[in-house]
Amino acid sequence: MVAPMPRARPGRTIAEVGEFGFLERALAQAPVGRGTLVGPGQDCALIRCGARRCLFTVDALVEGVHFEPGWLSPRQIGRKSFLVNASDIAAMGGRPRFCVVNLAVPSSYPARDLHAVQRGIVEAAQRCEASVVGGNLTRAAQLSVAIALLGDAPKRLVTRQGARVGDLVYVTGTLGDAALAVRLLRAARAVPRSVIRRFREPTPRLQAGRRLVESALVSAMIDVSDGLVQDLGHLCAESRVGACIDASAVPRSPAYREALGAADPLALHGGEDYELLCTVPERNVDRLERRRAQLGCALTRIGRITADGGVRVVDAAGRQVALGAAGFDHFRSGLQR
Amino acid sequence: MVAPMPRARPGRTIAEVGEFGFLERALAQAPVGRGTLVGPGQDCALIRCGARRCLFTVDALVEGVHFEPGWLSPRQIGRKSFLVNASDIAAMGGRPRFCVVNLAVPSSYPARDLHAVQRGIVEAAQRCEASVVGGNLTRAAQLSVAIALLGDAPKRLVTRQGARVGDLVYVTGTLGDAALAVRLLRAARAVPRSVIRRFREPTPRLQAGRRLVESALVSAMIDVSDGLVQDLGHLCAESRVGACIDASAVPRSPAYREALGAADPLALHGGEDYELLCTVPERNVDRLERRRAQLGCALTRIGRITADGGVRVVDAAGRQVALGAAGFDHFRSGLQR
Repeated sequence: MVAPMPRARPGRTIAEVGEFGFLERALAQAPVGRGTLVGPGQDCALIRCGARRCLFTVDALVEGVHFEPGWLSPRQIGRKSFLVNASDIAAMGGRPRFCVVNLAVPSSYPARDLHAVQRGIVEAAQRCEASVVGGNLTRAAQLSVAIALLGDAPKRLVTRQGARVGDLVYVTGTLGDAALAVRLLRAARAVPRSVIRRFREPTPRLQAGRRLVESALVSAMIDVSDGLVQDLGHLCAESRVGACIDASAVPRSPAYREALGAADPLALHGGEDYELLCTVPERNVDRLERRRAQLGCALTRIGRITADGGVRVVDAAGRQVALGAAGFDHFRSGLQR
Repeated sequence: MVAPMPRARPGRTIAEVGEFGFLERALAQAPVGRGTLVGPGQDCALIRCGARRCLFTVDALVEGVHFEPGWLSPRQIGRKSFLVNASDIAAMGGRPRFCVVNLAVPSSYPARDLHAVQRGIVEAAQRCEASVVGGNLTRAAQLSVAIALLGDAPKRLVTRQGARVGDLVYVTGTLGDAALAVRLLRAARAVPRSVIRRFREPTPRLQAGRRLVESALVSAMIDVSDGLVQDLGHLCAESRVGACIDASAVPRSPAYREALGAADPLALHGGEDYELLCTVPERNVDRLERRRAQLGCALTRIGRITADGGVRVVDAAGRQVALGAAGFDHFRSGLQR
């Protein structure tokens, strides 16, 4: 006979260890099995399905963690849940194909709203030429949407690991709008339409991701979901290099510059922009610049890969800028914006 | 400028509509895209990856919904999270290959326990010859583990839709132990070891599923996760038939019979047994009986498919047994055991 198990919970909490601390240790212990070409630790896994190579990734949005009640309509929650996954596929140059959805909702959640969440997922999937092929629904204390997305992999493999000293650092689009939206929403202030749109409905850079990978011009890539400095830090750690960023070169939208000025550091740390950050060997720069028009979005040079570990930020005069608490780790620091 | 959105929530809640009511409507509206051979509504989706066909499914375990604190060790939570997914692959005769994991935990959750959850997932995956290739970690109010599992599909397709009037109904293994475990755990009573094991560590019937599908002897199949009567009801609804079950033929374990007697109806409604329920055309019965030894588990005939819709249950004398509230819908009724 077995009695119910007592629950012993000593040691450090996940809040103390932090999301990335946990992931680092957990990933190190996961054995890589047959058919796994790239395992955990990148934006997507790369797996072999017969003759084909597929990308496989999972991400979730949780009410009270990634957004507060009222920040997103149910339909926007659905759309964003899909789009943040598609951004991981973009970061490895793939095409989204099939997803399955786990919906967790309180019993009191209106059925109409849940249908709207589902509709939003389907809409966003269709826009990215992908299909929602299955789902699961469960009760939970708070609304959350987890989506696992399978995509076609490109012929070439670009991960976070290929950056070399001297490579130039580029980023697509503009940074900081999503974090600005969160800051204004938290303060219950009005948010410019173009700014809140960046938070509510990110644009996965699928075309840019594919072109950058297929062109064989980039050495490493990652999507900026947790903030520029933090995600560049991940890329540097994986590539065993450092980086130096020119804060004044980081692209900010007109609405951002109007609200915060051109030098505000929020764009360095704010999360959820879902732009692509890539490194480019210097010999490829001319060819890259000529291909810019094919990317479907802006591409801006913001710094260079260095031999020293870690990410340094300098101003236009080359003076080092002190970095505060950076990026998004919802265990250690909540929404750092 | 856009102000934070007011949250309007009229209409019926998901608790009023019920899990299956929602899924039915949501599934009807999801368009089936390119490469989707079987979309939502089965145990797994069937998708085309190049020349290969894959099964794709998602399932989640949530603390306070699927188990209470102390019922499962963190490692068992991890193992069970994988195994319930593998059962969906078994129900379509496939082989689990790759999974991605979404872990959601409160900030106060011990890092050591989270590592144990992760280890449990990896162990169970390895036991089923699958790999954990990626994951995501997020903060949430309660522990939950959602796993999306990709598997190799068999050459033949067996879904919930092929049952025909006159087919015989079979089930693998025994039913009711998991529900008995939950009943005893809820009452804080001791639980026989063999019984709690069925709740803590279900055995996905992968070998049986493959053999049954490959043999071309079964016309429809589903796994019993929500209770026999309820899951047989799903199969019948999808096949547009009814079924009549002999309650006394439903296989129960020795521990179950000792605890509740051979006739207790818990085995008809209790969820989480993760056995396979299949229908077999009468002409195939002799061949099926000869292949029993290859299945790796018991296979018991429990009833027959009928023309009338719905599931009827009769006793050994053929008298109809009244059915109470049946099966597991954690929105409408909580754990019905």
